Amino acid sequence: MPATPFDWIDDEARRRADAGLVRRLRPREAEAEPLDLASNDYLGLTRHPEVTSAAADAARRWGGGATGSRLVTGSTALHAELERELAAFCGFEAALVLSSGYAANLAALTALTGRGALIASDAGNHASIVDGCRLSRAETAVVPHADPEAVRKTLRGHGGRKLAVTDSVFSVDGDAAPLAALAAVCRAEGAALLVDDAHGLGVLGEGGRGALDAAGLAGDADVVATLTLSKSLGSQGGAVLGPARVIDHLVNTARTFIFDTGLAPAAVGAALGGLRLLRREPERALRARTVATALYEGLTAAGLTAVRPDAAVVSVRAPSADAAVRWAADCRTAGTAVGCFRPPSVPDGISRLRLTARADLTDEQIARAVETVRRTAPQS
Amino acid sequence: MPATPFDWIDDEARRRADAGLVRRLRPREAEAEPLDLASNDYLGLTRHPEVTSAAADAARRWGGGATGSRLVTGSTALHAELERELAAFCGFEAALVLSSGYAANLAALTALTGRGALIASDAGNHASIVDGCRLSRAETAVVPHADPEAVRKTLRGHGGRKLAVTDSVFSVDGDAAPLAALAAVCRAEGAALLVDDAHGLGVLGEGGRGALDAAGLAGDADVVATLTLSKSLGSQGGAVLGPARVIDHLVNTARTFIFDTGLAPAAVGAALGGLRLLRREPERALRARTVATALYEGLTAAGLTAVRPDAAVVSVRAPSADAAVRWAADCRTAGTAVGCFRPPSVPDGISRLRLTARADLTDEQIARAVETVRRTAPQS
Repeated sequence: MPATPFDWIDDEARRRADAGLVRRLRPREAEAEPLDLASNDYLGLTRHPEVTSAAADAARRWGGGATGSRLVTGSTALHAELERELAAFCGFEAALVLSSGYAANLAALTALTGRGALIASDAGNHASIVDGCRLSRAETAVVPHADPEAVRKTLRGHGGRKLAVTDSVFSVDGDAAPLAALAAVCRAEGAALLVDDAHGLGVLGEGGRGALDAAGLAGDADVVATLTLSKSLGSQGGAVLGPARVIDHLVNTARTFIFDTGLAPAAVGAALGGLRLLRREPERALRARTVATALYEGLTAAGLTAVRPDAAVVSVRAPSADAAVRWAADCRTAGTAVGCFRPPSVPDGISRLRLTARADLTDEQIARAVETVRRTAPQS
Repeated sequence: MPATPFDWIDDEARRRADAGLVRRLRPREAEAEPLDLASNDYLGLTRHPEVTSAAADAARRWGGGATGSRLVTGSTALHAELERELAAFCGFEAALVLSSGYAANLAALTALTGRGALIASDAGNHASIVDGCRLSRAETAVVPHADPEAVRKTLRGHGGRKLAVTDSVFSVDGDAAPLAALAAVCRAEGAALLVDDAHGLGVLGEGGRGALDAAGLAGDADVVATLTLSKSLGSQGGAVLGPARVIDHLVNTARTFIFDTGLAPAAVGAALGGLRLLRREPERALRARTVATALYEGLTAAGLTAVRPDAAVVSVRAPSADAAVRWAADCRTAGTAVGCFRPPSVPDGISRLRLTARADLTDEQIARAVETVRRTAPQS
């Protein structure tokens, strides 16, 4: 084969193979896994008939796509309805729906900072926050994980715009950010606080109103939240929540909002369906947390090293990337799907199994999952 | 109101208002506009019953969302089916579906370049390409619009990885990139060629196979394409097409693929429905181009300054941003929806009306649209 400008790709592929870090897509069938603790379907709503019907109805009524940018033809009355209900539920003045949580973080970070601004970003933040910081052209200081004092020292003395950004619940270890302390630091230093509540919405706060509700910060004039519609709400997409003037500013300036096609009507409908279900059945939020605690207690009682969950994610340490891959594969063979996090998706290089607590798991399923993870654990 | 870290937003809002550049969302109802020349629904498929049924069926069968990253639980057999059919239709070895065209461009640019690489990026490229270049950490040279010789001079002499990136059809003026000449330059200089075919798929090439098919470049070992599922295919999402090793590389390294939730099943289903319709009714592609030419000829015969369309976008110059906004509003009042592009969405600061040729427009509708645009034109 003649030389091509992509030959270096084969070298990288070989290096990945040698390191045991090859990723492959494994398409699944329509039926749910026998016992799924790998998805982010925290409330068990993705396959709920009310959610899938809302998606189907929206597609039939509004079309297969939004047909354009939200600023041209891509805003439907359904988008506006979801934005009103999301803002009201989470306790914010206004909301803006985007095509993904990734796009929401890029939008908020680029529109609210910029050249001359300073961002204090937690070392454990999601890739979309890291990329948003890079795109923003602001100076970004990566601060130690969950350390409000480090944030204070970073922000202090900077003269221009400043902002601290954190996940509310970190996706790798399932631990929560110290939001109240971070907000106090931000206020003392005149900085804005941006919180990605992807893993808090539907799980934390009163009836699943999220981590900002739990911390008493929802709707505050200096606080902005991002979230996903693809986890607790069983759909796809993301949103930014905040003061109305912040949302107006995003409509006018956020490139990943302006230059992207609007979220498809089916996804808007599914998210509305999920949100309305959650309002009617607020006990789902508490149940997700209870299931997480039960998983954690079962795993630690079995001698495994897990992190006490602050929301619905339970993280279990693995001795190596290779061992984590084999462990997850053995769990799947035994009928329990679990997530497997390994470099470069883990900030500290430590591979883990990641178990998702779903509100619709039964006590028997919890016990079975714990037993499967224990039985398949690598010998340490 | 006490001071908040967002007070600067009000100053920016005032400046926008003074400059006549305020953007507001105008949610639309479910019924199609009386005469829609503003959306990107080039083939008129968004509301086609086969497309909306495919979306609805997929939501009911597969759920309201994909439930996780494509690498965890977010890859369904439906995603794999769409990827196979897209790649085969467009003439590429493999395809990867992402949640938006924006995400597809970020994925391709970041995964295929990186620090030490050189990107030659056309001055008229879409915002998502500009952002992808920024995120990639590669050195980016913005080259004059549609100028292969400038690309050659830029690439020549660079020792590391190099890549030229261009839209196939530029969204503002509807003009086409000189793809064959660009490919020749890239080959001579050992560079890869990345083409965003968002506005070419479904319109250009044999039966709508896209601009790479039209240029005889589809499937070449040094060519990668990105595209959207949200325009001709009537859905939502984006894709990267290229050699299998490039797609494998993206699966392993592209952050906007790895750390994003998979595209919702309804959008996958709608895109599959749109693609199958296009395969069965290839004449839709030619009709979209014929409609565009008819719009252009009618507008220029009426004395307006328009750009001869290379695909389905017809651009008409406006004397100012203010005049463009009023013109578009007057068209809408008269029952014809047209797009309005103004700073900062236009690279050269010139405001325009943007008319989309849809394959399902009748000759009577074309004549009516031309007459409305002519009658409401600002006096120059």
